[in-house]
Amino acid sequence: MAEDSAAPSHEQDVNPWSVEGARTETGEVAAIDYEALAKKWNTSLIDQELLERFERVTGHKPHRWLRRGLFFSHRDFEKILTKYEHGEPFFLYTGRGPSTGSLHLGHTIPLQFTKWLQDVFDVPLVFMLTDDEKALFNDQATFEDTLHFAMENARDIIALGFDVKKTFLYSDLKYLGNHFLMNAWEFSRLITFNQVRGAFGFNESSNIGKIFFPSVQCVAAFATSYPEIWTDEPLPVRSQKIADIACLIPMGIDQDPYFRLLRDNAHRMRYPSPKPALIHSKFLTALQGAGGKMSSSNPNSAIFMTDTPKQIKTKINKYAFSGGQVSVEDHRRLGGNPDVDVSYIYLTYFEEDDEKLEKIYNDYKKGDLLTGELKKLAIDVLQENVQQFQERRKLVTDEVLESYMRPRKLEWRGNPNPVPKPPSEEKPEEKGKGKGKGKDKDKKLVVL
Amino acid sequence: MAEDSAAPSHEQDVNPWSVEGARTETGEVAAIDYEALAKKWNTSLIDQELLERFERVTGHKPHRWLRRGLFFSHRDFEKILTKYEHGEPFFLYTGRGPSTGSLHLGHTIPLQFTKWLQDVFDVPLVFMLTDDEKALFNDQATFEDTLHFAMENARDIIALGFDVKKTFLYSDLKYLGNHFLMNAWEFSRLITFNQVRGAFGFNESSNIGKIFFPSVQCVAAFATSYPEIWTDEPLPVRSQKIADIACLIPMGIDQDPYFRLLRDNAHRMRYPSPKPALIHSKFLTALQGAGGKMSSSNPNSAIFMTDTPKQIKTKINKYAFSGGQVSVEDHRRLGGNPDVDVSYIYLTYFEEDDEKLEKIYNDYKKGDLLTGELKKLAIDVLQENVQQFQERRKLVTDEVLESYMRPRKLEWRGNPNPVPKPPSEEKPEEKGKGKGKGKDKDKKLVVL
Repeated sequence: MAEDSAAPSHEQDVNPWSVEGARTETGEVAAIDYEALAKKWNTSLIDQELLERFERVTGHKPHRWLRRGLFFSHRDFEKILTKYEHGEPFFLYTGRGPSTGSLHLGHTIPLQFTKWLQDVFDVPLVFMLTDDEKALFNDQATFEDTLHFAMENARDIIALGFDVKKTFLYSDLKYLGNHFLMNAWEFSRLITFNQVRGAFGFNESSNIGKIFFPSVQCVAAFATSYPEIWTDEPLPVRSQKIADIACLIPMGIDQDPYFRLLRDNAHRMRYPSPKPALIHSKFLTALQGAGGKMSSSNPNSAIFMTDTPKQIKTKINKYAFSGGQVSVEDHRRLGGNPDVDVSYIYLTYFEEDDEKLEKIYNDYKKGDLLTGELKKLAIDVLQENVQQFQERRKLVTDEVLESYMRPRKLEWRGNPNPVPKPPSEEKPEEKGKGKGKGKDKDKKLVVL
Repeated sequence: MAEDSAAPSHEQDVNPWSVEGARTETGEVAAIDYEALAKKWNTSLIDQELLERFERVTGHKPHRWLRRGLFFSHRDFEKILTKYEHGEPFFLYTGRGPSTGSLHLGHTIPLQFTKWLQDVFDVPLVFMLTDDEKALFNDQATFEDTLHFAMENARDIIALGFDVKKTFLYSDLKYLGNHFLMNAWEFSRLITFNQVRGAFGFNESSNIGKIFFPSVQCVAAFATSYPEIWTDEPLPVRSQKIADIACLIPMGIDQDPYFRLLRDNAHRMRYPSPKPALIHSKFLTALQGAGGKMSSSNPNSAIFMTDTPKQIKTKINKYAFSGGQVSVEDHRRLGGNPDVDVSYIYLTYFEEDDEKLEKIYNDYKKGDLLTGELKKLAIDVLQENVQQFQERRKLVTDEVLESYMRPRKLEWRGNPNPVPKPPSEEKPEEKGKGKGKGKDKDKKLVVL
């Protein structure tokens, strides 16, 4: 249950507001058991067959986060691949709860993955900043605070490189109204208190904003909530043509309760939408190791995107849980355990080369690679990632911010050629798609 | 309880969605006992002393609906008079739930009274059309339906003569967003499910939209929900200066549960507002007589503002409950009972002349005035009222509609001279205030 349950639990507890691994009787926290979670929530695990189909259909090698199981679970992702194959329109929806002014590395992973999906599929992305939710669930934050955080987070998100032509980024507190709100009201009419109590662990003492909020997060997956991104023409009412556009939601597995509710009820809207497809990520491991996720409220649990190279070095050296032995001699003799080593785990997030990574794994396990050396590898890759981010962040002016956040018609291509291409090893960014090529004459906009 | 209680009850039941007088054991429905309701809900009855103070402070004779007790109850109305005396700013807020495309006479009474208050006090009015609520509480209506009704109702409301310079009329489905929605979220954080369950009779099977909606209806009474009506300057955040502006809400007594919740929590907002003052009306008696209110869902219970003179005549003659005797001879001999006679009651709504009305009352009671003659008097006054309305309704073009519904800075004077004037018998409309005088050089806008 999400609320009012600070007492220690013996089972793992994953919900949209907190994540905790199972506790042993001695109080130790175990790693999240993602397979158990997928089984409990009845999601599908991403298997080799699905990844092979992805590669056949899109012509892109699966992202390392797919290959390495960071995105490990889904609902109906195969239907999105079929839509792509057939050249049928769909869009991406993801979001972030702006609980703080600065992202940490754990926040950026699903977002970078979303950018990659946007590049691969060449489809619109709507990006929701739930500044309403963050204050609803935290009495200490004012709505002005969370709105401020949203605008700061927006700059971080833009710095991750989303294509402005096909990205609409919005703050709930600034954008919600009109068709979006009409959808939220209509969806809310379909959902009872009993249902959200079950899905989110609300109770009779929960505030009425929390109780209503799932409706807002859900209808963000309906294309009809954003009439302006599909057409320049005025849309006086919602329409079935828009409602038919499918949606794929990349997300942390903790958000699944929202979208189960959505999938169970999307067909009950006046303009029914297909069940949105989901693709679930695990949580980025906290510096202290398995069993939780990086948290903004614990500065030493995470690398922040504002950290200096020195801070990153210190955090990895001081706080990153090590799978190594206590002495160099023992390490050389016994070898380390990369599976629980946070430095190694972080390397798996960012090192693209599978073979190089396998060598590091084996060397560490044999004791050939020392803990300090492994930490150094992680520090280098994290420093580089964060520094590049910070460079791009500086370029996000007020004008750039406005260009992403202004409601407007988006431009995209989708799959212009609904015949599977041969698989390619290239990364999508290297294919000359997306940014800077928006004015191609051969660009074929999806016709609605 | 509002929901799921179709079973007959022995006590009177008044709530925002239905009104029913007490039932006797034989199933007869009694008139609403308003004094009992005021006592139960702990409102203050409007007494002679308050009316005298009203006249001293405003210089206006109390409206016939005050003199005759149709507006019979209040909360803190005397504080509004004090504000007026001191030249302190306040505004009016009222609303209508657009359940149908056309108003009946019962709908227009509180609205005409609100217009009179606006003329007397010369203050801004915000007028909310709850097209969101009407679909939330009625699964048969689509949100497009209720939005359409709202826009039709808006034309009716404008035809009642509100001054465009100081009136902002809005549909929830079109207008809500920004500061209004931020207020709604913030208010919703203060209110638990248990509280709305108690106030409105919701239960665990109620939909989550209903549960949240009271927050929307409540925050409409906060001046901060409408930053644009107070100033042309951009208001990036809410402000205490605006929040301090008081509010007076003329309303049917059935809406009181919403505003009790509001009054109990207005001081808990980040920018606290004074407790809104309320002034409560009784319900317009249905054609069939006491014990209910006119209802759009029963066409023969009400005079509609679209009725022809012939329809009005037929409805009064055929359906208006009579206090007369069965034969002319009996009536001459025994006299009639004007207190339960619907034709007489309707006359009290619209006949301004107290002495004329008293004579009708006495003549009918003595049997000098026959039922047919009394009905004729009512028919004449209703036909005239409705016909005048229909003439004004024709003048409400799309442009006029837009001029009321566009969010914009309002212009008003308030009390320019905070010294009580001597009482006057003139009606406010005859004083040359309000309409047509908006460009007076001496007009002093309230400075915020």
